Amino acid sequence: MMAVVTHLEAVQAAQRTIAGKIERTPARKISGADLDPRLEGLELVFKCEMFQKTGSFKIRGVLNKLASLSAEEKARGVVAMSSGNHAQAVAYGARLEGVPAVVVMPTYAVQYKIDATRALGAEVVLCDAQELLATYARTVDERQATAVHPFDDPLVFSGAGTLGLEMLEDAPDLDAVVVCTGGGGLLSGVATAVKNLKPDARVVGVEPEGACAIRKSLDAGSMVTLDLLDTIADGLAPPFTGENVFARVRQYVDDVVLVSDDEIREAVRLVVERLRLVVEPSGGAALAAVLAGRVGVARGQTVAVTLSGGNVTAERLKQML
Amino acid sequence: MMAVVTHLEAVQAAQRTIAGKIERTPARKISGADLDPRLEGLELVFKCEMFQKTGSFKIRGVLNKLASLSAEEKARGVVAMSSGNHAQAVAYGARLEGVPAVVVMPTYAVQYKIDATRALGAEVVLCDAQELLATYARTVDERQATAVHPFDDPLVFSGAGTLGLEMLEDAPDLDAVVVCTGGGGLLSGVATAVKNLKPDARVVGVEPEGACAIRKSLDAGSMVTLDLLDTIADGLAPPFTGENVFARVRQYVDDVVLVSDDEIREAVRLVVERLRLVVEPSGGAALAAVLAGRVGVARGQTVAVTLSGGNVTAERLKQML
Repeated sequence: MMAVVTHLEAVQAAQRTIAGKIERTPARKISGADLDPRLEGLELVFKCEMFQKTGSFKIRGVLNKLASLSAEEKARGVVAMSSGNHAQAVAYGARLEGVPAVVVMPTYAVQYKIDATRALGAEVVLCDAQELLATYARTVDERQATAVHPFDDPLVFSGAGTLGLEMLEDAPDLDAVVVCTGGGGLLSGVATAVKNLKPDARVVGVEPEGACAIRKSLDAGSMVTLDLLDTIADGLAPPFTGENVFARVRQYVDDVVLVSDDEIREAVRLVVERLRLVVEPSGGAALAAVLAGRVGVARGQTVAVTLSGGNVTAERLKQML
Repeated sequence: MMAVVTHLEAVQAAQRTIAGKIERTPARKISGADLDPRLEGLELVFKCEMFQKTGSFKIRGVLNKLASLSAEEKARGVVAMSSGNHAQAVAYGARLEGVPAVVVMPTYAVQYKIDATRALGAEVVLCDAQELLATYARTVDERQATAVHPFDDPLVFSGAGTLGLEMLEDAPDLDAVVVCTGGGGLLSGVATAVKNLKPDARVVGVEPEGACAIRKSLDAGSMVTLDLLDTIADGLAPPFTGENVFARVRQYVDDVVLVSDDEIREAVRLVVERLRLVVEPSGGAALAAVLAGRVGVARGQTVAVTLSGGNVTAERLKQML
């Protein structure tokens, strides 16, 4: 029988589970004025998750989920659905744990991410965006495999939340945490960690204008599914959030704000020129919101910002510079 | 009276002198196969000097030199000559130490680096490349200031050599060190540190084909001045080496090899895509030589590689991607 654990304990347990299998990624601290005049007076702490295994934070949740499987479940394998970073994380994690993996990917996924997923040994099933959920459900059923949800599984988002624990280790005096947000796994995990350990810290999620399922769900008071997705941040573009994630967001997150594609591009350029780091568009969204003055922080504050992934080809990066 | 110090002791003293004023930059370790098939079997350790103060290793030598000045010398100020990274380092270091600084820069210098030097508070004197040395000498004379040579001063290249000490701290078992090379300050300093502490480690310098004063000087048996410079690696393009540096190179360096501009561009792209780091062209030269198989290392070896600087605009980087 499993002991009852608190939300925070689940994240702390995940940290112990995945330690040694993930990179303990560094933080880069910089005065806002050295980055952009609009940031003067802020101290920024960037979480460099582009250096994580498979190039994004996703491996944290995946490894936490895989560790929970029985030997029998491992033998039957796992199935995941993703446009990219979660796909690579599942492929890498499954190979590490000796678990067969099938990844259902939409045909609009970035080719580089499809190739990388296959190169890591996973079977990739491509289908139209409209058939994504049905194909996923059918594949789980056919293979009698375990579904590894990209975000709406407590084991997955508690794993993602370990990033929040590390941010607090690196900047114990932080006043705010700004998190780029797609389905909401990273946001809900990080918010769970931060709000339980430092309740007065502000936690803000950032979605692209063209893929803002959580903002719209918050406004509607219940979960909304988007008909149209339109953003360069392919990693932040699921058309829906999830029940568990949405509950966590409502419990712990102070605000969810939006950024345009142009604002994301500008943030990516700034990260390249000033931080000398490479982020994918999704990874630049949180900084874009800080630059736009949308996160509700004030001079003198320390703001931790996620750079959540760096899976971008030279060709795609070039288009943003 | 100054005690006689060995070459190595001078580098070790520099490390104590500049500690706390510079960044202790991180090393990124990666298996060669994860970077490029040509690197299979090698373990690579990249020295991330793009995160150094002013964006390149140059500040190490400058701060070591400035620390040697008397109060009177500091009051009279310093003069430097540079096409870029040394200029910024002198401007930054001088401001930190409260020393007036004049920097003589050639008109062909990258505008971004000229602007950055001025923004750091130095007076910039622009002149044609042909008049560089004369203008420099005249300015030193007129101002009764101390010259801070970009490389051929033992205090400057011993300061640069602290980077070699850090590489040995990060990878005590390294088999080879590959160093991008312009005037030769970084190469001679690093070679001094590495060869004295680990004599069996191979030390290789890398110059651009279109600006290879040291390779040509080694071939000629005496120092050669180049008439023509033609390389995208503006940071590696002094037309000459120096007496002190050249003696160190002959004493400590195993080989100096050349890379083409195309090879440098390819290395920069690989650093962006696989390491998720930004280097300027000069900073990519060392990796370019390893990729080209020119540094004389074998499978199973650990190779430390300098990523010596990241001062590149988005616009210039774009041209290389």
